[in-house]
Amino acid sequence: MKNPIEAPEYGIVWVTAPTRTEAEAIAEALVESRLAACVSLTPIHSIYTWKGKINKEEEWQLTIKTDLRQFTRLESTIKSLHSYEVPEIIAIPIIAGSTPYLNWISESVVRD
Amino acid sequence: MKNPIEAPEYGIVWVTAPTRTEAEAIAEALVESRLAACVSLTPIHSIYTWKGKINKEEEWQLTIKTDLRQFTRLESTIKSLHSYEVPEIIAIPIIAGSTPYLNWISESVVRD
Amino acid sequence: MKNPIEAPEYGIVWVTAPTRTEAEAIAEALVESRLAACVSLTPIHSIYTWKGKINKEEEWQLTIKTDLRQFTRLESTIKSLHSYEVPEIIAIPIIAGSTPYLNWISESVVRD
Repeated sequence: MKNPIEAPEYGIVWVTAPTRTEAEAIAEALVESRLAACVSLTPIHSIYTWKGKINKEEEWQLTIKTDLRQFTRLESTIKSLHSYEVPEIIAIPIIAGSTPYLNWISESVVRD
Repeated sequence: MKNPIEAPEYGIVWVTAPTRTEAEAIAEALVESRLAACVSLTPIHSIYTWKGKINKEEEWQLTIKTDLRQFTRLESTIKSLHSYEVPEIIAIPIIAGSTPYLNWISESVVRD
Repeated sequence: MKNPIEAPEYGIVWVTAPTRTEAEAIAEALVESRLAACVSLTPIHSIYTWKGKINKEEEWQLTIKTDLRQFTRLESTIKSLHSYEVPEIIAIPIIAGSTPYLNWISESVVRD
């Protein structure tokens, strides 16, 4: 860490995808390009309104552990692979963690 | 947005419910009343103490994407539909996100 | 609450474990020792790199609701029971919640 502004900003990014195949393809691309240290996938049932009508879908949620300083590149990689017009891509902060695990995130994620 | 104090506060609210039927009823009520943009449901196994005894239950978790300025109304709607004496209702912050998705949350959630 | 510095810091700690048996053993230990109020378990599919190679595993995620002032003890209990060299242990903040539920967390979790 050279100066405070360059400290990692550990966080979790959540994305939903329509199928397990698409979720896995995005997860692998993120891990291979070192934009994420680890991605976990879970099946979910979603309920939302779209153009005034209630929709229910079976989807997959990606839980992406990363350094949020890479958020912009992560978002752009996800969008290039995602089949939705407006994919859910949201980030939540990690405020504490086991030091060896956080160090592993740092080492796994690219720094520019 | 009239002034900075009125900017949306994007967040996720987590609620657990005893059955999928109850979880879906709450999710639909929140989306229909525009207190949430999207709710996803997942089955979970819960372990906790209640009155000094360890309990294990099969439950459903609701992951509610919303504008936290509506938290008080959201909480009161959940309580009116929930069968537990003390339901879990907790909020975590969204600190970054894809702009079109965040805009969709804003447009989907009521503003008084 | 004696002074502001001693107010609870409600949060969620996420841990992944290789099997349901190990996840349950950790969850029970945390609840029994009052280092957590409630733990929920979910099966997940994980994708990550380890020593330069992409791995995929079936794992279990623990979602631990607690007072983060106990994070150090929680981390040390988890490490003593966990079979991984570098287990994932990360905390995210709870920024709002139903008062009776937050009070229940406070009462359930030990204060030194």
